[in-house]
Amino acid sequence: MPTTWKASYKQFLLNISARSKVVTALREFILFSRLGRTDSHFTDLHDAGRLDIVYECVVACFFLSHGIRKDTVFHAVLNGPPVPPLHVRIDGAILHDVRTDQMTWTQILRKVLAAKPHPGITVDRTSFENLLKTRAEQSSIYILEEGGKDVSSAELNGTSVFILGDHVGLPKKAEMFALRFGEKLSLGRQPYLAASCITILNYLLDRKTFQALSKEKRD
Amino acid sequence: MPTTWKASYKQFLLNISARSKVVTALREFILFSRLGRTDSHFTDLHDAGRLDIVYECVVACFFLSHGIRKDTVFHAVLNGPPVPPLHVRIDGAILHDVRTDQMTWTQILRKVLAAKPHPGITVDRTSFENLLKTRAEQSSIYILEEGGKDVSSAELNGTSVFILGDHVGLPKKAEMFALRFGEKLSLGRQPYLAASCITILNYLLDRKTFQALSKEKRD
Repeated sequence: MPTTWKASYKQFLLNISARSKVVTALREFILFSRLGRTDSHFTDLHDAGRLDIVYECVVACFFLSHGIRKDTVFHAVLNGPPVPPLHVRIDGAILHDVRTDQMTWTQILRKVLAAKPHPGITVDRTSFENLLKTRAEQSSIYILEEGGKDVSSAELNGTSVFILGDHVGLPKKAEMFALRFGEKLSLGRQPYLAASCITILNYLLDRKTFQALSKEKRD
Repeated sequence: MPTTWKASYKQFLLNISARSKVVTALREFILFSRLGRTDSHFTDLHDAGRLDIVYECVVACFFLSHGIRKDTVFHAVLNGPPVPPLHVRIDGAILHDVRTDQMTWTQILRKVLAAKPHPGITVDRTSFENLLKTRAEQSSIYILEEGGKDVSSAELNGTSVFILGDHVGLPKKAEMFALRFGEKLSLGRQPYLAASCITILNYLLDRKTFQALSKEKRD
């Protein structure tokens, strides 16, 4: 992104909360991890209740080529042994000391699950249900599912919160709870990986943001 | 995807080569890896000339939730020590015994770079230039770059071949060579990771395929 675009994009993000008519790109993703391990006693992310899916989603959420998305927040609610639930929240605006490789994130996840600090990451005991209640007060909630409303006809204005399941999918009870606050959204007929859904949604929201930004410049 | 869609999608892919007016989803990706190691003497993909980027691209190319894309081919041209270039070709139609995790692909890449077989993967000494010449005979070539023609105005009919650089980008010489056979294509103003570009292109081609399929059913 050339510097002029960077500056205007930043200014645009600073302005958006006060300008309801503009399509914005603020975004949050919530991954419901059925078996994600809730302590730091693991050597391998895959064998720690598929924490490798959490890692893949983190990369999809935040990493651009040589940069981190500042406008994105990621939540993983881990429901595996020994002390579920644990809520890991990662804020792109503060996150640093990170790379895209799995070894880096194995160390970071092990560290934060042992209650040690890392810039931009917090861990608490918020359940999926309580997290959703809080987020629904300020944002539109979308539950990703193949059979949902097609993304091309969704507004995605303001702050959007997207809910994803892991490789087993969202438990029925969690889905029914989420549907009290939001609606199902579909990216099409292919059953994408959770991380791919995030990459695609980030892309679609980027397009919307830049279209709105171009319109702002023209008006 | 429900079974009826699966069956009709497969039939559709079998029919497409004979029906030039239909938009198809056949796709190939070529990653130019500047420093990707060309032997099997490594323990960690990141330290092996960023073979972790090759791994990330492979996952983005082939993996759906509980399935592999059969209509996709991935090439990595490795230009690192000790014996460059090496051309790794992965064909989704034959690929099996794979998972999405990094450990699995560390083992597979180490195996094929030691000249041992794996279903769906071949390794030979084709250079980037010779690979491109062969592919350009049958396909449209697109070089991914932020400043290129916007993807929304590209046709992407027939078999599309997309060329990507690693974290350093495509060398100028390789880019100039590729431009003799194709054109620059942009996904927008964000500098996406190579793997993210593949996920986004797969998504856009999926949408095109299903639109064409829906039209076929209507006509």
